[in-house]
Amino acid sequence: MAGNIFGNTFRLATFGESHGEAIGGVIDGCPPGIILNLEAIQNELNRRKPGQSSIVTQRKETDKVRFLSGIFEGKTTGTPIGFIIENENQHSEDYLHIKQAYRPSHADFVYDKKYGYRDYRGGGRSSARETACRVVAGAIAKQIIPQIRIIAYVSAVGNLSLDKPYNQLDFNNIEKNAVRCPDPQLAMQMEQYIKQIRKEGDTIGGIVTCVIQNVPIGLGEPVFDKLQADLAKAMLSINAVKGFEYGSGFEGTKLKGSQHNDNFNSDGSTQTNFSGGIQGGISNGMDIYFRVAFKPVATIMQPQKTIDTNGNIVTIQGKGRHDPCVVPRAVPIVEAMSAIVLADYHLRM
Amino acid sequence: MAGNIFGNTFRLATFGESHGEAIGGVIDGCPPGIILNLEAIQNELNRRKPGQSSIVTQRKETDKVRFLSGIFEGKTTGTPIGFIIENENQHSEDYLHIKQAYRPSHADFVYDKKYGYRDYRGGGRSSARETACRVVAGAIAKQIIPQIRIIAYVSAVGNLSLDKPYNQLDFNNIEKNAVRCPDPQLAMQMEQYIKQIRKEGDTIGGIVTCVIQNVPIGLGEPVFDKLQADLAKAMLSINAVKGFEYGSGFEGTKLKGSQHNDNFNSDGSTQTNFSGGIQGGISNGMDIYFRVAFKPVATIMQPQKTIDTNGNIVTIQGKGRHDPCVVPRAVPIVEAMSAIVLADYHLRM
Amino acid sequence: MAGNIFGNTFRLATFGESHGEAIGGVIDGCPPGIILNLEAIQNELNRRKPGQSSIVTQRKETDKVRFLSGIFEGKTTGTPIGFIIENENQHSEDYLHIKQAYRPSHADFVYDKKYGYRDYRGGGRSSARETACRVVAGAIAKQIIPQIRIIAYVSAVGNLSLDKPYNQLDFNNIEKNAVRCPDPQLAMQMEQYIKQIRKEGDTIGGIVTCVIQNVPIGLGEPVFDKLQADLAKAMLSINAVKGFEYGSGFEGTKLKGSQHNDNFNSDGSTQTNFSGGIQGGISNGMDIYFRVAFKPVATIMQPQKTIDTNGNIVTIQGKGRHDPCVVPRAVPIVEAMSAIVLADYHLRM
Amino acid sequence: MAGNIFGNTFRLATFGESHGEAIGGVIDGCPPGIILNLEAIQNELNRRKPGQSSIVTQRKETDKVRFLSGIFEGKTTGTPIGFIIENENQHSEDYLHIKQAYRPSHADFVYDKKYGYRDYRGGGRSSARETACRVVAGAIAKQIIPQIRIIAYVSAVGNLSLDKPYNQLDFNNIEKNAVRCPDPQLAMQMEQYIKQIRKEGDTIGGIVTCVIQNVPIGLGEPVFDKLQADLAKAMLSINAVKGFEYGSGFEGTKLKGSQHNDNFNSDGSTQTNFSGGIQGGISNGMDIYFRVAFKPVATIMQPQKTIDTNGNIVTIQGKGRHDPCVVPRAVPIVEAMSAIVLADYHLRM
Repeated sequence: MAGNIFGNTFRLATFGESHGEAIGGVIDGCPPGIILNLEAIQNELNRRKPGQSSIVTQRKETDKVRFLSGIFEGKTTGTPIGFIIENENQHSEDYLHIKQAYRPSHADFVYDKKYGYRDYRGGGRSSARETACRVVAGAIAKQIIPQIRIIAYVSAVGNLSLDKPYNQLDFNNIEKNAVRCPDPQLAMQMEQYIKQIRKEGDTIGGIVTCVIQNVPIGLGEPVFDKLQADLAKAMLSINAVKGFEYGSGFEGTKLKGSQHNDNFNSDGSTQTNFSGGIQGGISNGMDIYFRVAFKPVATIMQPQKTIDTNGNIVTIQGKGRHDPCVVPRAVPIVEAMSAIVLADYHLRM
Repeated sequence: MAGNIFGNTFRLATFGESHGEAIGGVIDGCPPGIILNLEAIQNELNRRKPGQSSIVTQRKETDKVRFLSGIFEGKTTGTPIGFIIENENQHSEDYLHIKQAYRPSHADFVYDKKYGYRDYRGGGRSSARETACRVVAGAIAKQIIPQIRIIAYVSAVGNLSLDKPYNQLDFNNIEKNAVRCPDPQLAMQMEQYIKQIRKEGDTIGGIVTCVIQNVPIGLGEPVFDKLQADLAKAMLSINAVKGFEYGSGFEGTKLKGSQHNDNFNSDGSTQTNFSGGIQGGISNGMDIYFRVAFKPVATIMQPQKTIDTNGNIVTIQGKGRHDPCVVPRAVPIVEAMSAIVLADYHLRM
Repeated sequence: MAGNIFGNTFRLATFGESHGEAIGGVIDGCPPGIILNLEAIQNELNRRKPGQSSIVTQRKETDKVRFLSGIFEGKTTGTPIGFIIENENQHSEDYLHIKQAYRPSHADFVYDKKYGYRDYRGGGRSSARETACRVVAGAIAKQIIPQIRIIAYVSAVGNLSLDKPYNQLDFNNIEKNAVRCPDPQLAMQMEQYIKQIRKEGDTIGGIVTCVIQNVPIGLGEPVFDKLQADLAKAMLSINAVKGFEYGSGFEGTKLKGSQHNDNFNSDGSTQTNFSGGIQGGISNGMDIYFRVAFKPVATIMQPQKTIDTNGNIVTIQGKGRHDPCVVPRAVPIVEAMSAIVLADYHLRM
Repeated sequence: MAGNIFGNTFRLATFGESHGEAIGGVIDGCPPGIILNLEAIQNELNRRKPGQSSIVTQRKETDKVRFLSGIFEGKTTGTPIGFIIENENQHSEDYLHIKQAYRPSHADFVYDKKYGYRDYRGGGRSSARETACRVVAGAIAKQIIPQIRIIAYVSAVGNLSLDKPYNQLDFNNIEKNAVRCPDPQLAMQMEQYIKQIRKEGDTIGGIVTCVIQNVPIGLGEPVFDKLQADLAKAMLSINAVKGFEYGSGFEGTKLKGSQHNDNFNSDGSTQTNFSGGIQGGISNGMDIYFRVAFKPVATIMQPQKTIDTNGNIVTIQGKGRHDPCVVPRAVPIVEAMSAIVLADYHLRM
């Protein structure tokens, strides 16, 4: 049983390799009658696409989505939405050097072992290129739940960390810089740091914080399908993600119950929100917030020792363009997966 | 669509409230011909059960599991395994005081809002009592994949933190103390700290670390059902869990790619294991390790201001027994959920 | 991936062998707030149970259902409903003679081949005893959709066939005779015929017709989950069922489109109903009706030549009680599975 | 929860309306390493496509399938296979006359009621055009289980019925005539009859018989996912299907157990095969055979009284081309759905 279908009521099936003809997907379960803003969908894709700024990979893809079904006279029909994004950047000769080699911390080795062989061009299916399909579906999901506000931003790049709580930040600043950090000064530092990393031919990790506001009470289906459980799954399914914490997170383990318990106001809201907007697996109407850890991208431009498919030690040298820091482009992906999870639960109610 | 069924090929459906007649479940997909060690299953339940030591809740439950089907002449038959655990501790009068009140940071409020009303006795379905069923299923799952070794332990209680990497620890020490921490000295400190917390009528959070060894290469189904994604979902579906990180985790975000990449040995193993045994969503044969954050239990013995179902501010006073620190009893639950995920993927191959 | 879970939004997981300790199940997805009529559930079980009349198997089972969860103060809570039915009739010595033999047209042979061995006592999991759990779930499903009327009856026993269309029958007669045929005269003939068959130690097949009225427009989810597709699956999943046809069925293949098309009335109802209440996989508000073919039960009291597990020809002799004609007891099972499918689609809307 | 995904381990998600840009799908779960015969896939599409002979609809579609992923250097990679078929025949003006009218026995009425409005061009999603995607997936499924032989043929057109059992027929004759009936003389009569029906502007129903040979023992997952249950669901999910029977079917209800029981040979095969190759929901290695009833197509060229969306009685006149008898083109669809079900169960073992 393969794993390329996500969700229960809003279901997304995706396909496509980084250097095949096209990537795409089928969305099954989008309600009928939604007047789709197609430009908003393309805008989300543009926020993810390579080459959008000087601090991300300079690979060129226009990433134009083409919808094939499920929309009629501007509205969703309740039937499945099929879509494709043609691959334009097919310099697969860039990858001949890794045809016989396993790049460190990539999926090359495990794909060969699991499937017997692999599409070696740019990582094939294991490339983060597939996340473009998630962004398309997420942009549609957002339009199913327009009342819910989903904002992600970069809160750390390497050791440069934004320590203010989210409610002391001005979210309007996020899209004003290439890093997508709402603190302008820190954003500038991050940008310079990423440029330096790029020059070194290296990469650096980071953290994306996501805040979800105006969430109705009642999303989540205990005991297994708790809202935080599916958010965690959604995030950990994104390439390069190593961790997830919501509400008080790992720091909350140091607190006592008498400190951590969120006291109620008489309207059912709470005075603190260590719970992160979810209690017992169900949204309680307060803001949901969580943090997602991204490791440094494995593709670097420095020479690396590794093994070939026969176990011989070889040296490989990164070619083409690399992405020095993935988190700026990860912001719309985190938002998209959040939207998919929330729309799914919204439709499950 | 409710959420009380977990897994794809090894599927667990559970039922039961903390103060109903019984809890139990159905396991669908256990392979035939496995000679089940029933004592090992009961032992896992005993590791989870209340009253097992002086630092956990003193509630008394024998937690005897009774198997009703799927086992014949000592072996699994390939048909579903039904089981129940009778509830003995039904002092539901202990809960009359919360019939009209919402306990802070419990699920009382959201259950009322979502379902219209609730079984208020001890949290009903939202009680961690349901995890006993997970432990039963996990103990069976372990016997499906006997070659894989799953070890969890307590690595932090409040600020008392075990900072040594797992491979410098002696796992034989874990069950030698009530805290389930493999460092005997730290275990003693944790135990004393928990006793003090209990005296205060308070609770404290902590962290459970889990290590999985001898994992075959190839478990995990990208792009959505990555192994780490389902481990994350499994962990975040456990009551009180606030975070999950595997391999280099949140700390790994501070590293450069040139530091973080795991160089291969000629046999395909790696010299470092920042990847945490998983690359591209698929196990690579190295140890899987992850950390799970547990918040302090919400039930405390101190008086708390809260609201009743009409929004009036009331004061509630904890009654009966409380669990000052949940992580010692969470250890077998983390192991159980890990085993369920791994057995599921093992059967999906 | 095993197959003991049915449904999508109203999900039923069942377990249990005919001669194990108990059978039972978990219903996940029953909405909260339903005041359950438990007596009505037991009544449905009584309609299915052995020994209810002189023309069905004389095996004795009280078939008392015990609910373990999901119901509080008389109402469903929205949490899973666990239930068990203890097995009382455990004369497993009756089955020692087939321990080494494969009964013709039973599942003995395929279970041994598929699972490696089997619980040979009375068919184990392959016994129709498991349908008792379906009846419990179906009786609950009926209470989720009380406005929908589901009536099944026996329309044929061997060559004795009720040829009147359902709307010329008085459904009040169905439960007035042991055969559950709404035509009193034919019912008498059927009863006498079944008694004769029983004396011969033989069995006979038959047909159950089901009519579903007051169905809301819109149930069914094309293109794969058409309402008739899931009704067909539900029926063919019942032991001994060999065929399903709805609306005009097999006879409709002989008609021309100009004869078969159902002309509309101005209110959207149709003048004829060859469509059987479903168009394009979606209920259209007209009566749904279908027929289900049951083969003669394989257990007969006559001596039969067969093979043992080594392939030697042996003679077996039926022992204990046999069921000369399964259709009278199949009536509540057909209704139950219909109710489960309809409730599931009702909750999917 | 919508219904455009089929299967469990070999999962097919389809999309597309008859007059949208394209139809297509995603196949998730195709094993890696299969050398795909793409010509064989196109051949199956050609067997289904309009205009292939004088007795089917004369609409013109080339129905060229384009694969976008999941295949590399001629072999499947184990990653999802995305494919599209562009729609060429977009004379949607042909359908303006039904924009405001509900065609009798079509899905127009229920789609409007369920989804609020509809893509009225040629039936939109409810058009049988979507079955082209099933044929693509089925042709791939056949290549996953090459040892299993799946043959369907036309066994009835209206009252012209082929009464010989399948094992007295020469399957080599099936593709030698436009009707796909293995009896050459009857095929000629059927052909003439269909031509006459076409001249009348009318349609006629028919029956497709399917035979599956060389099936391994063990396919099927009781108790709910019995092999016959999923075959029934697969067939009833095809447009215009009204009934399904396997093995002895409806006729078998007239037999006694002593006549119907299949006696074993010493090798486990049986002397008769009333069971139709399935016992207890599991394939027993004997031939599987079943019959599928198709109603006459609802689109006729004669004027018909019907209602418009306001409930006014109007007269509509069929335009364009119609399909006088659907069963010849249904043959590859029945085979495709059979292959999908069998491959799915094969991969579930």
